[in-house]
Amino acid sequence: MANPVLVEVTRNGIVESRHRGTFAVIDASGTVVASVGDIDRPVYPRSAVKVLQALPLVENGWADRFGLTDAELALVCASHSGEPIHTEAAVAILAKAGLTGAALECGVHWPSSKRASKTLIRQGAEPSALHNNCSGKHAGFLCLACGLGAEPQGYVGPDHPVQRAVKSALAEVYETDLTHGAGTDGCSIPTYAVPLRHLARAFARLGTGEGFGPSRQAAAARLRRSVAAHPVMVAGPGRLDTQLGEHFRERVFTKTGAEGVFCASLPERGWGLALKCDDGATRASEAILLQLLAATMPWSPDDHAAFSTQLDPVLRNWNGIEVGRIRHSENLTAAFVGVA
Amino acid sequence: MANPVLVEVTRNGIVESRHRGTFAVIDASGTVVASVGDIDRPVYPRSAVKVLQALPLVENGWADRFGLTDAELALVCASHSGEPIHTEAAVAILAKAGLTGAALECGVHWPSSKRASKTLIRQGAEPSALHNNCSGKHAGFLCLACGLGAEPQGYVGPDHPVQRAVKSALAEVYETDLTHGAGTDGCSIPTYAVPLRHLARAFARLGTGEGFGPSRQAAAARLRRSVAAHPVMVAGPGRLDTQLGEHFRERVFTKTGAEGVFCASLPERGWGLALKCDDGATRASEAILLQLLAATMPWSPDDHAAFSTQLDPVLRNWNGIEVGRIRHSENLTAAFVGVA
Repeated sequence: MANPVLVEVTRNGIVESRHRGTFAVIDASGTVVASVGDIDRPVYPRSAVKVLQALPLVENGWADRFGLTDAELALVCASHSGEPIHTEAAVAILAKAGLTGAALECGVHWPSSKRASKTLIRQGAEPSALHNNCSGKHAGFLCLACGLGAEPQGYVGPDHPVQRAVKSALAEVYETDLTHGAGTDGCSIPTYAVPLRHLARAFARLGTGEGFGPSRQAAAARLRRSVAAHPVMVAGPGRLDTQLGEHFRERVFTKTGAEGVFCASLPERGWGLALKCDDGATRASEAILLQLLAATMPWSPDDHAAFSTQLDPVLRNWNGIEVGRIRHSENLTAAFVGVA
Repeated sequence: MANPVLVEVTRNGIVESRHRGTFAVIDASGTVVASVGDIDRPVYPRSAVKVLQALPLVENGWADRFGLTDAELALVCASHSGEPIHTEAAVAILAKAGLTGAALECGVHWPSSKRASKTLIRQGAEPSALHNNCSGKHAGFLCLACGLGAEPQGYVGPDHPVQRAVKSALAEVYETDLTHGAGTDGCSIPTYAVPLRHLARAFARLGTGEGFGPSRQAAAARLRRSVAAHPVMVAGPGRLDTQLGEHFRERVFTKTGAEGVFCASLPERGWGLALKCDDGATRASEAILLQLLAATMPWSPDDHAAFSTQLDPVLRNWNGIEVGRIRHSENLTAAFVGVA
């Protein structure tokens, strides 16, 4: 069964491209509020669950032991753009564990920030592992390794104490034994496939604390507060997770993952959501996320005004001429008929 | 009816993302050799038909009148990477019409070539319209305008003599009145929606000349030869159209278009092909094209060896670790069962 079309890309009113996908909005008890498509098919959540992967660092007291600031914890949850503000925070986290960027095992890529890339090129410099969008998460893993008294080297491996601790936390918050399969993520750590149903419920719990013990509740609240206080750290200037954080602050926690994934906590409603665009396109996953937030959160006229261009994106060509739109299909809004 | 899944992106053996699409392989008389999905749904061919848009320039003698070289004609058919070899050829074409880059109305974007972009950044320079991937096509349009004795300014508009001549040629080679709708392309010229069935037949005719008058036959052959002789001009180093041209030369003409389109002529078989990935993804359209070429052309062991990594692409992460594959689905190969 094909998942339904959720986003259409038009050119002069004609649909040029189509994106199919699936999403689940679920409360902390597991009751489905709204869904489309097959929410029991396992998906790789990729970077969308970095906040969950950060739980062991915080709930066991290591974040406090190493004196990590809220901005640094936001970076631990981040897929950052590689701006200096991000790389400097990664250096600071590593220093608190007595380490440097040399300990990072995430690999190297150019910053997604064009500004940051241009600066490196002008300096005749090359990017380092600190510019990898996952360097904050990896710096957090290295703190966890030190906290656990484990050898830092090899911390990305599935059998290292760090990844065992992360897997254990994920299995608990997903309420699954993680037997749906595992792959290797872009930054070399394991990524565990999980049905959207479990993923959305985990994010409902992240927002409410329901079903978590006291230390996990406190850790979840701390991580959400940290990202809400420093949204530029979780992504970067002009990126959707940062824009949503800057506007909504603690009203919502959102996080993107590669291949068209988003997860979000909606503490006001006690709901969590998870979505996956079948084909992995970010333009579609962002459009779906915004429509889901508009459908699930009480949006004021100010909220709508802040995101009006992104709720109804206009496509312009190299001369700035409007050539088309990115619009959500009725399959998406129809799922919320009757949802109060 | 959903078009079938043609390409799957796996991570450790699990399908992470899926790409649906449609394709048609058709001979010059319009007989379908193989197809998948709805080939009568109009699609925007975008840049995949630049070679057809170049016909009026060549078949009416203007290319010869202005003394355009084969390399320059290849650039007229190109979506180039903005390397110096491309921008210099665009300047040369414009000079032959007594014009400069200031006459280009395609808009400005950074070169897709990272090398070319880095060079600009290091020089503290900004890109110009010459770096636009369509600048060769637009330089050809300006030659056509001069040949037609039309005011160059406004040559991108649908009512300008240049675009009227292009539309007339497209309608003839598609054998349709182009009433399926029109949009504005990235470079501001009109793009006309056309069913894949018509598009594939047009490319069969481009390869065989069947159904074309003598001057169009000669123009089609000249353009194909020009691209085959200078494949680096039609895209750029490391890009698929260039790689295919460098290896197969006149055995195949391929051209990519935005939003997951490819068109190709297979003169050895007398067939044309057209494909569209529903969601517009290039990684999928390239995978589909390669499988279609492998299914429709007589490939030697050397041919297979030249494209072995692209026929079965391995996905590696930032540390070079294999994390997955891009593979075609059985829906694709099944369409060729019984095709000799």
